[in-house]
Amino acid sequence: MTEFFERHRETLEAALAAAESRDFWSAYPEVPSKKIYGEVAPEAGEAAYQALLGKPFALPGHPERGRLGSEVSPFGPSLAIDYASAPAEDLIAAASAAGEAWANSSARTRAGVLLEALARLNRRSFEMGHAVMHTTGQPFVMAFQAGGPHAQDRGLEAVAYAYRAMSETPESARWTKPQGKHPPIVLEKHYRVLPRGVALTIGCNTFPTWNGYPGLFASLATGNTVIVKPHPAAVLPLAITLQELRAVLAEAGFDPNVVLLAVDEQGAEITKTLACHPAIKIIDYTGSNAFADWLRGEARQARLYSEEAGVNSVVLASTDNFKGTCANLAFSISLYSGQMCTAPQNIYIPKDGIETDQGHKSFDEVAAALKAAVDGLLGDPARAAGVCGALANPATLARVEAAAQEGRVVRASAPLEGLEGARTATPLLLAVEAKTSQAHREERFGPIAFLVASESAEAAIDEAAGLAREKGAITAAVYATDAATLERSEAAFGAAGVSLSCNLTGNIFVNQSAAFSDYHVSGANPAGNACLTDSAFVADRFRIVAVRRPIAA
Amino acid sequence: MTEFFERHRETLEAALAAAESRDFWSAYPEVPSKKIYGEVAPEAGEAAYQALLGKPFALPGHPERGRLGSEVSPFGPSLAIDYASAPAEDLIAAASAAGEAWANSSARTRAGVLLEALARLNRRSFEMGHAVMHTTGQPFVMAFQAGGPHAQDRGLEAVAYAYRAMSETPESARWTKPQGKHPPIVLEKHYRVLPRGVALTIGCNTFPTWNGYPGLFASLATGNTVIVKPHPAAVLPLAITLQELRAVLAEAGFDPNVVLLAVDEQGAEITKTLACHPAIKIIDYTGSNAFADWLRGEARQARLYSEEAGVNSVVLASTDNFKGTCANLAFSISLYSGQMCTAPQNIYIPKDGIETDQGHKSFDEVAAALKAAVDGLLGDPARAAGVCGALANPATLARVEAAAQEGRVVRASAPLEGLEGARTATPLLLAVEAKTSQAHREERFGPIAFLVASESAEAAIDEAAGLAREKGAITAAVYATDAATLERSEAAFGAAGVSLSCNLTGNIFVNQSAAFSDYHVSGANPAGNACLTDSAFVADRFRIVAVRRPIAA
Repeated sequence: MTEFFERHRETLEAALAAAESRDFWSAYPEVPSKKIYGEVAPEAGEAAYQALLGKPFALPGHPERGRLGSEVSPFGPSLAIDYASAPAEDLIAAASAAGEAWANSSARTRAGVLLEALARLNRRSFEMGHAVMHTTGQPFVMAFQAGGPHAQDRGLEAVAYAYRAMSETPESARWTKPQGKHPPIVLEKHYRVLPRGVALTIGCNTFPTWNGYPGLFASLATGNTVIVKPHPAAVLPLAITLQELRAVLAEAGFDPNVVLLAVDEQGAEITKTLACHPAIKIIDYTGSNAFADWLRGEARQARLYSEEAGVNSVVLASTDNFKGTCANLAFSISLYSGQMCTAPQNIYIPKDGIETDQGHKSFDEVAAALKAAVDGLLGDPARAAGVCGALANPATLARVEAAAQEGRVVRASAPLEGLEGARTATPLLLAVEAKTSQAHREERFGPIAFLVASESAEAAIDEAAGLAREKGAITAAVYATDAATLERSEAAFGAAGVSLSCNLTGNIFVNQSAAFSDYHVSGANPAGNACLTDSAFVADRFRIVAVRRPIAA
Repeated sequence: MTEFFERHRETLEAALAAAESRDFWSAYPEVPSKKIYGEVAPEAGEAAYQALLGKPFALPGHPERGRLGSEVSPFGPSLAIDYASAPAEDLIAAASAAGEAWANSSARTRAGVLLEALARLNRRSFEMGHAVMHTTGQPFVMAFQAGGPHAQDRGLEAVAYAYRAMSETPESARWTKPQGKHPPIVLEKHYRVLPRGVALTIGCNTFPTWNGYPGLFASLATGNTVIVKPHPAAVLPLAITLQELRAVLAEAGFDPNVVLLAVDEQGAEITKTLACHPAIKIIDYTGSNAFADWLRGEARQARLYSEEAGVNSVVLASTDNFKGTCANLAFSISLYSGQMCTAPQNIYIPKDGIETDQGHKSFDEVAAALKAAVDGLLGDPARAAGVCGALANPATLARVEAAAQEGRVVRASAPLEGLEGARTATPLLLAVEAKTSQAHREERFGPIAFLVASESAEAAIDEAAGLAREKGAITAAVYATDAATLERSEAAFGAAGVSLSCNLTGNIFVNQSAAFSDYHVSGANPAGNACLTDSAFVADRFRIVAVRRPIAA
C-alpha cells in the first residue's frame, strides 16, 4: 500500500524542506475561498455540518457499549450528536489488537495513510470550520483556519518530522570489520522501528484539532495506535478527524481501530483510567498545569507531551509606530476573546510612560489608546463577532466578571451585540501596579488583560521573564526602538524559554504560531514541552531493535 | 575558538557518515599496540597510572571543601588517591556560574572542545586502561578497549548525534508570506539552542567511562553543564576524563567548572541530594532498577536516561557449528566474569536436546560441552586472568557462593589461579528446569549462568522474550539452523525490545555493542532507555527559542 505515499511524496518532501529552511510554507490553503476550495464548498461544508446535527455519529466498526454526547454550541444551540462509547478496557483491547499490523508496516506506508487522511480532511475544511466554531466558540474564519488548514499543517509537520527521525536509521546494513591479514568479520544487520504501544491524545475544548493533531499524527506515524479522548464539549472535530483516518486505514487494509475515540461526559471522565493503564505508553495533553502535574505523578508509565497554562507578557518600552502597536495589541487581546494559549495577558508599561512617534505618552495615555483601539476594533458588531467569537466555557465568563475587582478598570467587558443566545465577553482591561498587584501574576484565561505599571522597561522585562520562568509562558512580545532593550528582552525571555516577537505592528500577531517555522511550547518553562514540532517531539515515540548475524565475507 | 572544531571536523563528519551507514567505523584504535600508540606508550601509560597512586588528584580550580577517596583495586592494592570534594550546593552553584558562557557558545565551538578532549583522552588510553582495570576489575586489554577507545567512540557518537540534532534548526531564517497583490509579510527569525541547565551523570562501578561518556558528552555538546557523580569505587577513570575536559575548556576560554566531579563515599552518598536538586534537569544513570525507580519517583524535575538491570538470554535450538557455539558462549559468560550488562545469564536448551553438526546432543551433552568449553578457555591461568579479570564488588562473590544452591551444579565456580589478593570467581554453571525454577528468572549479576531445560525451542523463545519484557534485557541470542526458529526469535525478541544476535560462532560475541552500528538499551523494556545513541538520546537535552521581527520586504 505505497500508492498513498507516492501520491503525497512531494508534499512530504516540501514539508521537510520547509522545516529545514523555516521559510513560510503551507500545504493547505488558509483562505476560506471558493476559488481555492470550489464554488460550492462553503455551502456544501455548512450543509454537511448541519446534516450531522441531532444524529448518531457514524464510526463504522468502532467498539460500542453505549452512546454519549452532550455538546452545546457556545453560540447557543445544542448539537445533539451522540457517539459510540466504550469502557477503557474495551478501547485498550481494540487498540492492542489493531496494533501489530500497523507496527509492522513500513514508515512509508504509515506516512502515506496519514497524508491521504490529511488531504481528505482538508477537503472537509468548511465542515470542520463549523464543527470547530460550534464546539469551541471560535469565530468562523478562525475556526476554518485554525481548525482546518493550520491544524492539518501541524499534522503534516508531525508526520514529516517522524518520518525523518525514523529514516535516520537504515533498514539494513553490512558491518565489515577488518582483521589485518585475515578476512574481515562481516555482520548483516537489520533495524526495525518499534513503536511504544498505545498512545493517548487528550483533547482540549478550545483547539481540539490544532492542539490534537501534532501528537495524534506523530504517534500514528511512528507506528503507535492512538486513543483520542476529546474534551466532552468538543468531540465533533476529533470525531470527524477519526472518521477520515479510519476510512483511509480500512482502505489500506488496516484495522480502523488503530485510532479510537474515547467519549465521556463532564463529571464522569475516563481520562484518569485511560492515562494510568499500563498499556498507555505516550500521552499528549493540552490543558491545566494541575492535571498535567497529576499525569506526571500518576501516569509514570507513559511519556508525557504537554501544553499547559502560562502567563504571556508584552513589554511596551518605546515605539516608532504607536498607532500600529495599539492596533496590533488590541487585536491580539480580542482575538477569540483571549482564549488562545498564546494570547498576551500582561502588557507592561513603564509607570512614567513611553516615547513614541507621537511624542511622549504617559501610562494613562497608553492605557487610553489601547482602550480606544479595542473599542475601534470591536465598534462594528459584525466585525466584533468575527474577531471575538464566543466563550467556550461558562467558567471563563465567571472569571471575567470576578476579575473586574482585581485592578482599576480601564475598559469594562461586555457581551457582544447581535449574538443573542451566545456566551460572549469583550476584553476587560485592568490597570495594576507591578509593585503591589498579585492578580496579574496568575493565569486569568479569557478576555482579561492587565496593563501593568512598572518602574522601568528594564524592570518590566525582568519581571515578565521571571514570571515566565516561574509560571510558564508560550509567547512574549516587546516593543522598543533601541537595540539595548531588544537585546535585554531577547536574553531574558530566551533564558526563560519563551520565544519573542519584536515590534509587531502589522498583520502578524504575537498569538500566531506558524507551522514549519515557529516552534510552539519551548519545553524550557512550566508551560509544557509540546514543541510542535522538533525531533524531541517525535524521536522518543519509537525505539529501534536490531538483528545481526554473521555472513561470509 | 573554532580551531578545535576545524581540527576535528573530518572526524565528526566521518562519525556522522558511519552512524548513517552503520558500517564498522572507529575513530580510536582498539588495539593496545605500540605500532599505533607509540613505542613507549604501554610503559609510559602504566607509569603515569602509578604516578597517580597515593596522591591528591589534581583538578585545578575545582570547588573543594575537603578531600575524599577510598578506591581499592579488585586485584588487591588500595589506590590511596584523594579527590576534591564539595557539598551539592557548592557544585550546583559552580556549575550554574559556568553555564551561561557555555550555553551561549555555538554548537561548533562546543563540539570542537569535546572532540579535542576525546583526542587527548585517546592519547591517555594506556593510563586509562590501568585506571579502569584497578577500579572495575576488568582484565587489562578489556579495560584498555572498553575504558579507552570504545568509550571514546561512544562519546564521539554522542557529540555527533547532538551536533546533528542541533543542526536541524538553522540559526536564522527569513519567513516571507505572500499577500496576493500586496507586498509580502517578511519576518526575520533567529533560533537559539537553549540547554536544559545542569546535568548529572551517575557513574557505575563496572564501566565508568563506557557507560558514562554518552550522557556526559551528549549533555555537554547540547550546552548543559555536567556534574559527574562517580561510583565511590571507580572515581579515577572519570576524574582523568574531567582533568582533560577541564583543561581543554580552560584553553578555549571557558570556566572549567562546566564539568565537575562529585566525589562521595559508600554509605554517605550525595547522589540523592544532587538528583533532587531543582537545578538538575537531566540525569544519566547506570545501575539498579531499584534506584532508577527511586529517581523516576523523586527526581521528577529531571529527564532520566537509564541503563538498568535485566536478564539476558540465549536460545540454543540447533547449530551447524556445535564447537564454535560452545566456544563462543563460553567466552561470553566468562568475559569479565559475567559483569557486563550485556552478558548472557540464561542459556535455554530444549530438554530433549538439539541437532548439531556432530549429531543429536542431549541436554546433558550440551551442558557438558559448555562446561568443557569454559574449562578449556580458562585452563591456562594467564589466559583465564586475561578473560575473567576480578570482581568489582564483594557482593558479587557472595552472590556466586549463594547461587550454587539454586540449581544442579554443572560447573562449580572457583577463584582464579595465580591472582593472589584479587577477588575472583570463574563461571558457575547451573542446570535448572524452565517449568519449576524461579532462580533464573531474576538477574544474578556476575559469573552465574543457568542452563535452562525447556519443553521446546519455541517454548524457550517465548519464555526468554517474556522474561525480557517483564524484567528487562539488553541482549539476546539464538542459535538455529532453520528459518522458522530464527523468524520466531526475531519477532518475539523484537516485540520485547531486545536486539538479537543470531548464530554467533566466531569472534563476535553477544556481549559486544559496537558504536555507530549497534544500539544499546532499546528503551522498550525495563532495562532502561539509554540507547547510545539515537536522536531520542540527544534531542531532548536542549530546547529551541526564537526571536522574530518584521522587516521590510
